[in-house]
Amino acid sequence: MTPSPAPATPNEALTLFERTRSRTDALAAPLTPEDMMLQSMEDASPAKWHLAHTTWFFEEFILKPRLPGYQSPDDRFAFLFNSYYTQAGPRHARDKRGLVSRPGGQAVRDYRAHIEDSLARLLSAARDDADDIAGLVELGCHHEMQHQELLVTDLLHGLSFNPLLPTYKDPEPLAVTEEVPLSFTRHAGGLAEIGHSGSGFAYDCESPRHQTFLHPFEIADRPVTNRDWIAFIQDGGYDDPRHWFMEGHAVAQRDGWEHPLYWWKQDDEWWTYTLRGPQPVALDAPVVHVSYYEADAYARWAGARLPTEAEHEIAFKDTPIGGNLMGDAKNTGALRPLPGPGVWGDVWEWTASDFAPYPGFRPPEGALGEYNGKFMVNQRVLRGGSCATPREQMRATYRTFFYPHQRWQMLGLRLARDVT
Amino acid sequence: MTPSPAPATPNEALTLFERTRSRTDALAAPLTPEDMMLQSMEDASPAKWHLAHTTWFFEEFILKPRLPGYQSPDDRFAFLFNSYYTQAGPRHARDKRGLVSRPGGQAVRDYRAHIEDSLARLLSAARDDADDIAGLVELGCHHEMQHQELLVTDLLHGLSFNPLLPTYKDPEPLAVTEEVPLSFTRHAGGLAEIGHSGSGFAYDCESPRHQTFLHPFEIADRPVTNRDWIAFIQDGGYDDPRHWFMEGHAVAQRDGWEHPLYWWKQDDEWWTYTLRGPQPVALDAPVVHVSYYEADAYARWAGARLPTEAEHEIAFKDTPIGGNLMGDAKNTGALRPLPGPGVWGDVWEWTASDFAPYPGFRPPEGALGEYNGKFMVNQRVLRGGSCATPREQMRATYRTFFYPHQRWQMLGLRLARDVT
Amino acid sequence: MTPSPAPATPNEALTLFERTRSRTDALAAPLTPEDMMLQSMEDASPAKWHLAHTTWFFEEFILKPRLPGYQSPDDRFAFLFNSYYTQAGPRHARDKRGLVSRPGGQAVRDYRAHIEDSLARLLSAARDDADDIAGLVELGCHHEMQHQELLVTDLLHGLSFNPLLPTYKDPEPLAVTEEVPLSFTRHAGGLAEIGHSGSGFAYDCESPRHQTFLHPFEIADRPVTNRDWIAFIQDGGYDDPRHWFMEGHAVAQRDGWEHPLYWWKQDDEWWTYTLRGPQPVALDAPVVHVSYYEADAYARWAGARLPTEAEHEIAFKDTPIGGNLMGDAKNTGALRPLPGPGVWGDVWEWTASDFAPYPGFRPPEGALGEYNGKFMVNQRVLRGGSCATPREQMRATYRTFFYPHQRWQMLGLRLARDVT
Amino acid sequence: MTPSPAPATPNEALTLFERTRSRTDALAAPLTPEDMMLQSMEDASPAKWHLAHTTWFFEEFILKPRLPGYQSPDDRFAFLFNSYYTQAGPRHARDKRGLVSRPGGQAVRDYRAHIEDSLARLLSAARDDADDIAGLVELGCHHEMQHQELLVTDLLHGLSFNPLLPTYKDPEPLAVTEEVPLSFTRHAGGLAEIGHSGSGFAYDCESPRHQTFLHPFEIADRPVTNRDWIAFIQDGGYDDPRHWFMEGHAVAQRDGWEHPLYWWKQDDEWWTYTLRGPQPVALDAPVVHVSYYEADAYARWAGARLPTEAEHEIAFKDTPIGGNLMGDAKNTGALRPLPGPGVWGDVWEWTASDFAPYPGFRPPEGALGEYNGKFMVNQRVLRGGSCATPREQMRATYRTFFYPHQRWQMLGLRLARDVT
Repeated sequence: MTPSPAPATPNEALTLFERTRSRTDALAAPLTPEDMMLQSMEDASPAKWHLAHTTWFFEEFILKPRLPGYQSPDDRFAFLFNSYYTQAGPRHARDKRGLVSRPGGQAVRDYRAHIEDSLARLLSAARDDADDIAGLVELGCHHEMQHQELLVTDLLHGLSFNPLLPTYKDPEPLAVTEEVPLSFTRHAGGLAEIGHSGSGFAYDCESPRHQTFLHPFEIADRPVTNRDWIAFIQDGGYDDPRHWFMEGHAVAQRDGWEHPLYWWKQDDEWWTYTLRGPQPVALDAPVVHVSYYEADAYARWAGARLPTEAEHEIAFKDTPIGGNLMGDAKNTGALRPLPGPGVWGDVWEWTASDFAPYPGFRPPEGALGEYNGKFMVNQRVLRGGSCATPREQMRATYRTFFYPHQRWQMLGLRLARDVT
Repeated sequence: MTPSPAPATPNEALTLFERTRSRTDALAAPLTPEDMMLQSMEDASPAKWHLAHTTWFFEEFILKPRLPGYQSPDDRFAFLFNSYYTQAGPRHARDKRGLVSRPGGQAVRDYRAHIEDSLARLLSAARDDADDIAGLVELGCHHEMQHQELLVTDLLHGLSFNPLLPTYKDPEPLAVTEEVPLSFTRHAGGLAEIGHSGSGFAYDCESPRHQTFLHPFEIADRPVTNRDWIAFIQDGGYDDPRHWFMEGHAVAQRDGWEHPLYWWKQDDEWWTYTLRGPQPVALDAPVVHVSYYEADAYARWAGARLPTEAEHEIAFKDTPIGGNLMGDAKNTGALRPLPGPGVWGDVWEWTASDFAPYPGFRPPEGALGEYNGKFMVNQRVLRGGSCATPREQMRATYRTFFYPHQRWQMLGLRLARDVT
Repeated sequence: MTPSPAPATPNEALTLFERTRSRTDALAAPLTPEDMMLQSMEDASPAKWHLAHTTWFFEEFILKPRLPGYQSPDDRFAFLFNSYYTQAGPRHARDKRGLVSRPGGQAVRDYRAHIEDSLARLLSAARDDADDIAGLVELGCHHEMQHQELLVTDLLHGLSFNPLLPTYKDPEPLAVTEEVPLSFTRHAGGLAEIGHSGSGFAYDCESPRHQTFLHPFEIADRPVTNRDWIAFIQDGGYDDPRHWFMEGHAVAQRDGWEHPLYWWKQDDEWWTYTLRGPQPVALDAPVVHVSYYEADAYARWAGARLPTEAEHEIAFKDTPIGGNLMGDAKNTGALRPLPGPGVWGDVWEWTASDFAPYPGFRPPEGALGEYNGKFMVNQRVLRGGSCATPREQMRATYRTFFYPHQRWQMLGLRLARDVT
Repeated sequence: MTPSPAPATPNEALTLFERTRSRTDALAAPLTPEDMMLQSMEDASPAKWHLAHTTWFFEEFILKPRLPGYQSPDDRFAFLFNSYYTQAGPRHARDKRGLVSRPGGQAVRDYRAHIEDSLARLLSAARDDADDIAGLVELGCHHEMQHQELLVTDLLHGLSFNPLLPTYKDPEPLAVTEEVPLSFTRHAGGLAEIGHSGSGFAYDCESPRHQTFLHPFEIADRPVTNRDWIAFIQDGGYDDPRHWFMEGHAVAQRDGWEHPLYWWKQDDEWWTYTLRGPQPVALDAPVVHVSYYEADAYARWAGARLPTEAEHEIAFKDTPIGGNLMGDAKNTGALRPLPGPGVWGDVWEWTASDFAPYPGFRPPEGALGEYNGKFMVNQRVLRGGSCATPREQMRATYRTFFYPHQRWQMLGLRLARDVT
């Protein structure tokens, strides 16, 4: 992985800013004003909110404290579009975001333009704190990239409740993916270093880089595929509590899980709902939209286990990101070109690790210290990246995290095994 | 009350149809596409859904069975826009109506236009069943008028979750309302007839007209006002369980009720959220947005009781509808001109009667028999009408009904007393 | 119906008191200390609580205000054993009654003995208020009889969660019941009087006796039987929404109702759990443990309706209470001898009437005014009486009431029809 | 810590068995039959169930497969008293254990006696599998010891809902505990071994012993005390979201947490409910009944963090267990003598580690493999032991685990810090 180097100059920050903002606009372009209102559960947010919240982030953390005489187009947006930063003041109820019909789509686009103009002005001024600002802009851009992925997955979830199963983008022909036999690569273990090395952008939770001790392990050369998963289903995997955490099986039974989210069976064939509309399940693409509970049960059924995040990082730290399996099946088109050859980057991969601070971790002072630290309980780390993940967000040290029951993100898995 | 006579000819039905449809369009005119998506609870529906559902009603019950060669613009609308008619086929989940971003607002308007054209064609053809069709069109128009009121109240509820407290229509100056002393009119009771007399439109549940026996009673000459209600609040009425049904007080405490829905106190003055935005509570307008539980507790606190629906009907059967109190405070403008002098029609008035079939009631055969009959449990009858009620819906025999805990409709009360 | 005359003297009150208290003791005799702890839902209470609460009633409303120098064995019992009388002070959470392991069974029996001694002393003293006291004792006895029935039905519910399906009393051979053809008796309607006539005990809600107007009707000569109900099941009655209130069918589907409470099918035969343990469903006994929703759906399926409470009272006011059908199937033995010939009194019968005050109803002042009045919303009246109802509680004017979804009481139905 | 050596002979297993069973009986001795029924939440079980379940464990895993001709006193007990072992067959609903009034207390004691006799017979027979049986008996005894602690904590929870705040055992005078200044011990970190070393009893999840890498750290010499915790309360610690995980603060606010479980304030002094009845909070005893969320928030407020389980094990592996602080405040008397001098063992201490398998962990085959493995998600490890923990259960490698929101166990904390 070669992370993009840190912006050395405000100019470079501006370039990243413009590229990131355009990408968000491109993602939202096919959406109607009504599509942009959809909020199908508390975990998901309307597209319009994502557009506004990413904008508020620049306003709150850069423009308000740094641009003299800055005026917000509406002071109340700080209340509406703050997500969870308690130190940035009170905020709107998360589960009511879908009820904010006003400001409308155009007003939010005007808000975006206003902030973009102001930030361009700020970045082009000669200032003593120009490097600080460039760093904050870079953080804001990566923040916005995270929301680009959320925008896409939240939209998929929202549209999935529409019985008409609408299409976000016109379907393109599916690339052929072929069955790849399952093979494992052995690692010797021992003392190793993980975490961000210091060059290029990374979030606070990827640091400090630190030593850890690994036991010998093997890790699969490809993620688990839909073909694999169907074998698990056919073998009664969802029904047999021996494979499952007790808590996981209780959730699966309560919610009637018998396959990944968005799947259904039709004329004896598995189908799935995607942003391209209903599609037959592509057998050799990575399985996606499975919870941690399901992923762990699958691994146990397969006589394996999930890798730890350290194992995953060590295994892939020198592998160029790829994504040659799922790209065609789910690619939204707006996000990144068809991936080149490679072995990871098609799907987020659940690891066996809970999301915890690295030894010596200290969140930054102030509201930005709330970025990751306050989520470090009950969530599991995923590594990799999906077709909805901007290429600049993909690196071997990146830690994303979700709750074990969540499925609406592009979540899959890869097997690992002890070497004994 | 003089109900409009039944349409004698298809032409008259067409006139009613056009007037009703235009009114719905006028109500929706100030709404953005996003406003039309709002669904804030299962009881409420998006404005877009109301526009489509009232259209589907004409399509399903008139065009499909009667117009040869009729083609729906989209067969799937029957699933999306059926509300609860089990005999008209399966239907979309009621609590997910707010997630139907597509068809969008324009597509729904096109659907409306398509049905309007088809119906005009049907009504202008010479047919043996022309009278039947005219009757069904009349029912469809009254059905749409009910949804006009729901559209307005559902919208108010949906907008109320927006911290910006937006305005549906620009505020107009409030008409002055003056304190009206509380007086009662005595009725001797005895055998009396209630129910629809047979001339003019009425719903099935208003029939059969039948005898009932009334004990002597008194009924107030005006509804309970906000001024009255504030006295109840100040006297600790919400806290004292002696005034309340046990179940009602449990709901009030669970949900933290301390005043009518949409009220708050600001600088020692009561304010309320309306479709004109935030407004000071007009002291001499009828109290509105109170549940049956609250209404009954108020009546008991006031040493009175709620009237039965028979008492209400007998008391007002010869009184021209009015509404001279609340019109200015809440009038949406789109619905009806400022009411003339009169003593009822400003607010729906809870009665002590549960919604039950009249003796000998028989719902019509087929899906239209589901119109009212399947709701005849646990709901209470209200009489009267509000500023959101089309004038043609207001008559002394009209029975609307809601659950005792519901508050989002324009619900108030009037006192009655035994004569002993 | 011949109500027992009002106790003319304190001596007679004492006789009733002793008879009633002994009956409660006899009902509790087969129970272990553990059985007496069972609380399976908020609606139901432990047997121990019933024993203590009925005792508290005499203490709170008679001994404390009337017996000079009276000392409660434990002042905290007033908190533990008050049910819902807000004017009698704060009380323990209803859903936590099953967690009161102490006072234990013996302590509650001691409490009973203490109150019985004190009351005997009070009743045998020469006092100016002796008649008042006798009246209150009579009320307390009828109150205790209501709790006798609840004790039995709550116990059945509590034991039903035990997979061992234990037996409260040893099974006795079932009396043979034979199929009785369904016939109806016609009533002419017109002005009629209902309500308590003034002789003998009655609750406040049975008064005032008043005129009401009835339309001609027919009422069945026997309740609906299990044989009838099985035909409804076999005809798909539980699945067809056309028979049901919308709300009722939603509850039935949510809770998976496909037969009365406590039933199951075994080797193609219907069985039911009773206080005698598992028993085959007796085909010609009245169906029992059905909700109002089910009862109403059955009636509609059968082309009939439920009677109103006025119709029921008029129909049975001169019929001796009976109960010749279900007695053997469910009789607990402790409560009353096998019923003689007659046509009602085997099962509580749902009526179409909501529980509402009679015209001119006024609850008594003070805490005893909470006895019935605060429940007059959302509940339906039942008439009749069951094998668990003490004979002294059965009279044509008696109104018991439950919520439409409740099934754990001994609730059945009888058909009625309009005469047209 | 010196773990008791593995029973070398069936005789030794029998000795352990008899000692363990007697201890359980002694714990239950002060309980009434009603006390033994209490189930106050799904997480907690009635004492009677604990007595029966620990008995079933020996029956199911030893007697049934090993003792020829063994007959259970009631085959249905296997259904009633299996907790969660899916491979041992179906089982009763966990949240309905409090509704099993029969078998009663005496029947359960008879069941215990029956199994004890049978097991004594089995252990005294000369058999080839005598060592296997001795190992299973040892496991069964440790299993029963875990339930001894649960019996005590579940009982405390159950009794706490009784407004009379009953006493399990008569209060004894409190030993004086004095304020101990907070000091830390530094550890150098580096490669270290943790996990069970192989001598003495341990659960599967304590193995395999394995290498891990520790960063330098400091760990407190005593747990956090009530005095410390009151300072946190007084500083507004419960209200300030900056100290909290977002999820934890949401739970605290939803459930109204403002102090540890069982505390209340009375005349400006903190009190707590214990098995000795209400007691003033002993300022210098370890704080107990706090959730992981609270423990973590406290640590952050104090400028420290929770130790990982590896840090805790390394820090205390050579320290004799102690418990000189809380013993007097909460000691039930039945469980162990007053602890001698020492620095841990008074309270379970939350660690920062999620409960996960050690590298190379493999649960045993069959139902006993479900003992720990199926809980390895979303739970946090605690180390130490409390006054309710049998001495034989306390060792530096012991891992107990609970959910972050749970408080009813005897859960406290100890601070740690990075060395930088």
